[in-house]
Amino acid sequence: MEYMTGKMATDTKELSDILTGEWEGQTIRMHGAIHRIRDMGEVVFIVLRRRDGLVQTVYEEGRSNIAIKEIREEACVEVTGTVQSEDRAPNGFEIRLEQIRILSLPVEAMPIAVNRWKMNSSLETKLDLRPLSLRNIRERAKFRLQEGIVRGFRDYLCAQGFTEIHSPKIGARGAEGGANLFRLEYFHKHAVLAQSPQFYKQMMVGVFDRVFETAPVFRAEKHSTKRHLNEYVSLDFEMGYIESYEEIMEMETGFLQYTMQLLESEYQKELQILKVRIPKTDQIPKVRFDEAKRLVAEKYDRTIRNPYDLEPEEEALIGQYAKEEWDADFVFVTHYPSKKRPFYAMDDPEDEQFTLSFDLLFQGLEVTTGGQRIHDYRMLEKKLEQRGMTDEGMEQYMMAFKHGMPPHGGLGIGLERLTMKLLGEDNVREATLFPRDLNRLEP
Amino acid sequence: MEYMTGKMATDTKELSDILTGEWEGQTIRMHGAIHRIRDMGEVVFIVLRRRDGLVQTVYEEGRSNIAIKEIREEACVEVTGTVQSEDRAPNGFEIRLEQIRILSLPVEAMPIAVNRWKMNSSLETKLDLRPLSLRNIRERAKFRLQEGIVRGFRDYLCAQGFTEIHSPKIGARGAEGGANLFRLEYFHKHAVLAQSPQFYKQMMVGVFDRVFETAPVFRAEKHSTKRHLNEYVSLDFEMGYIESYEEIMEMETGFLQYTMQLLESEYQKELQILKVRIPKTDQIPKVRFDEAKRLVAEKYDRTIRNPYDLEPEEEALIGQYAKEEWDADFVFVTHYPSKKRPFYAMDDPEDEQFTLSFDLLFQGLEVTTGGQRIHDYRMLEKKLEQRGMTDEGMEQYMMAFKHGMPPHGGLGIGLERLTMKLLGEDNVREATLFPRDLNRLEP
Repeated sequence: MEYMTGKMATDTKELSDILTGEWEGQTIRMHGAIHRIRDMGEVVFIVLRRRDGLVQTVYEEGRSNIAIKEIREEACVEVTGTVQSEDRAPNGFEIRLEQIRILSLPVEAMPIAVNRWKMNSSLETKLDLRPLSLRNIRERAKFRLQEGIVRGFRDYLCAQGFTEIHSPKIGARGAEGGANLFRLEYFHKHAVLAQSPQFYKQMMVGVFDRVFETAPVFRAEKHSTKRHLNEYVSLDFEMGYIESYEEIMEMETGFLQYTMQLLESEYQKELQILKVRIPKTDQIPKVRFDEAKRLVAEKYDRTIRNPYDLEPEEEALIGQYAKEEWDADFVFVTHYPSKKRPFYAMDDPEDEQFTLSFDLLFQGLEVTTGGQRIHDYRMLEKKLEQRGMTDEGMEQYMMAFKHGMPPHGGLGIGLERLTMKLLGEDNVREATLFPRDLNRLEP
Repeated sequence: MEYMTGKMATDTKELSDILTGEWEGQTIRMHGAIHRIRDMGEVVFIVLRRRDGLVQTVYEEGRSNIAIKEIREEACVEVTGTVQSEDRAPNGFEIRLEQIRILSLPVEAMPIAVNRWKMNSSLETKLDLRPLSLRNIRERAKFRLQEGIVRGFRDYLCAQGFTEIHSPKIGARGAEGGANLFRLEYFHKHAVLAQSPQFYKQMMVGVFDRVFETAPVFRAEKHSTKRHLNEYVSLDFEMGYIESYEEIMEMETGFLQYTMQLLESEYQKELQILKVRIPKTDQIPKVRFDEAKRLVAEKYDRTIRNPYDLEPEEEALIGQYAKEEWDADFVFVTHYPSKKRPFYAMDDPEDEQFTLSFDLLFQGLEVTTGGQRIHDYRMLEKKLEQRGMTDEGMEQYMMAFKHGMPPHGGLGIGLERLTMKLLGEDNVREATLFPRDLNRLEP
C-alpha cells in the first residue's frame, strides 16, 4: 500500500530560496513560463515568468548544448543552471543556463504583447483576451492586491469574533424587492439569483451575533457605466448588539486600517509594480447626507436638484471636498433619506425622514452601503405596512424577528470598486477578473 | 468634523475577558440572548447565549429590582452584575444580577426547543425553521467547524503560494457540457450558472501558476439523495508545474493535516460540543480504481456490475475496507476510467483507458474529485475530436492552451460533504446552512 503523507517531493527552487543567498554559484533547477527572449547573438537572455516574480536566465553559446532555436516565448520550461549575482537582473541574480527542459510549447505567437511593461491595448481587447492579457505582470498584480483585500476582510473580522457564513445564491425571492433580479427556472419553480445576502446575514445575527460573507451577488441592472457590474463580489458583514450605527463604521475603518497594513507588509511587490499609493485610513471623516449636499453646493457653486439622492457627480464632488478640506481619501456620508433606503433600514428616532445609515465614498465613488437595521418585529411590520408591502415570501425572515433579534447593523462592500479605486483605475472592469455586464458574458 | 478611528468604544465584556479572572467580584456589563430561564422561586437562573458561549446569570429576589416577570426566553438583553466563580456554571462562573436592560423582546414563544441540548426535531422541521433551529448550541457549532474547514483551506493554500481568484458564476456555457445546468435569461441572451470554476481556474494557472477559489456552484441534478445538493460550496484549487498527479493528492493531504490541526487548536469548544473525533490524516492510502473494485468484491463477496464507475454502495465498502485493512478514514481512489471523466482529464500514458485522476473518499463518501489535466493544445484538440465535441463556446479556454500552459492539475472538494462526514452526520443537509434541493428553495 502506498500512502500520501502531505510532503512535497520536488527539488525545484522558488525565488525565495535563491534570495536567501545560499544557492549562489550552485546549480539549481527552476520552472517558469518564458516571458521574454532577448537574442543578442552569442548570448540570449531568457526571462522566466513565475508566480513569485521574473527570473533572468542566460544562454551562452558553447556553454551548454541547448537547442535554443526551439525555445519560444510562452513555452513552459524547467531550467537547470548556476545561480550568479547580477545587479542588472530582476531580484539581483541570474541563472546561467546548462539545460532547458521544455514542458509545453505554444502553437501560435501571442496576439498581444503581454511581456511589455504596459500593454497599450484597449480595455475591450484586454477583456476579450483575458486568459492571455492577465499574464502581463501589471495586470496580474492587480488581482494579487484584490486577494489581499479579501484576505484582510476575513482575517480582521475573524479576529473580531465574526463567523463566516455561506448563504444560498438561488432563492425564491430577492432581498430588495422585485427589481433588478435575474430570474431562472428551478425544477419548474420560479427562482431568482441573490442580489445580496441581506436577509440571510441578518437572520444569522440571531445565531452567531456577528457574521460575514464574501461571495458573488447578481444584479440585473441595465446600467452600462464604468462603475457597474451585473455580477460582483460583495464583502458583507452584519453585527449584533450595537449601541449605535457608528460602531459599524468603526468596524469598517478598522478593516481598512488592517488591510492597508496587510497590503504594505505582504503585497509590497505588487504595490511597487503598480505604483499604488496607500490611502489614508487613520481617521475617516463622517458627514451627514444633507450637510454634504450643502457643502459641495456652496463650495462648487452647484444647484441641488434631487434632495433625496446623491448623483454620481455629487459623490465625486464630496470626494473632492473631503480631499481638499480634510485631506481625506475616504469619507462616510450618513443619514440617507428614508425613502431612498430599503424597508429594513432603521429610521433616525430624532428625524424619521432620515435613516441611521451610511455610504462610504472612496475618492468620490461609493464603495460601501451600510447602516443599522430595524430589529423590533412590530416596527418591521409597521414599516412594511407603511410601504404597502406584505411579508409574502419573507416569512422566515420575519420569523427571526418574531422570536427576538438584537439591535444590529452591517454593510456590503463592492470588492471590485474598492480595488479599482485603490489601483487608481477609472473603470471597474480593470479590477474584475472576468467582468459580466450588459454586453459581456464571456470569457 | 467628526472622525471614525477604528476604535470600539463599548465597555461590555466578552467571555474571554471574564476567563482571565481579573473581573472576579467586580461589576460588569455583558449582552446576550436569553437562552433558558430556570425559575426556582426566590432564585432564577437566566442563561445567556452569546457567540462565545453560554453564560449563567442569577437573579435573587430582593437583591435587585429587576422586573423579572418581563424577562422571556429569546429576549436580547444587557445585564449588569457581579462576577462570581461557580464550578457548576458553564465556564466556571456566574453573574449575580443587578440590572437587566431589555434590548428586544420576542412576540411569540419558540415553536422548537432550541435551548435543549438535543432538539429531537426532524430534519425537515429544523430546515423549515432554520433561522431559529440554528440558535441551538449544537446546530450552530456545526457551522463554526465548517468555517474552520474553509479557513484551513485558504490559509494552507495561501502559505503554499496559491492566489485566490473569483470566477464568474454566470456564463455563456458550462464546463462539463450541457447536462445539469441551470439556465437563465441574461439581457436577452441565454446564460447558465457555473457548475464548476473548472475552465477559469485552469486558465488562471497560466497567470498565477497556483490558484484557488471557495465559492458556490450550481448543479441542476434531479437527484434526491442524502448526499446531493443543487447548490453547494466548492473548494477548488489548480496547480501548475506538477511532475505527477500525485502532487495534487499530496497538496490535499497537506490541507487536511493543516485543517485538522487548526480545528483542534481554534475550534476545540465546538469539537467538544459535537463530540467530533478528528479523523486520521497523517497518511492517506491510495488505491487504483480497478484494484479497489476487486478488493471489495473479494472481501465482501460482491459481483462487479459496472466496471466503469463506482456505485455509492461500492464507495461505502471501499471506505469500510480502508478502515478495516488500513485503519484509514480517508482513501484516495486513483485511475478512474477515461470514459467516465471529462474531456480535459489527462489519460494515463501507460494505459489510455484510465486517467491520472482520483477521488478522495471520506468514510466511504466521495468528497473530492481531482486529477491531472491535459495541458498540450494539440492533445486537447484531439481529445475533443475523439469525443465528437467542438470548441464552440470554449474559444477562450482553448486560447489559453494555444499560447502555452504548464502541466497542471487540481481538484474540487464539496464543503458540505466534508463537513457532514467530519460531524458523523448521514445527510448533507445537516451540514448546509440553507440547503437547496429538488424540493427546497426556502428559507
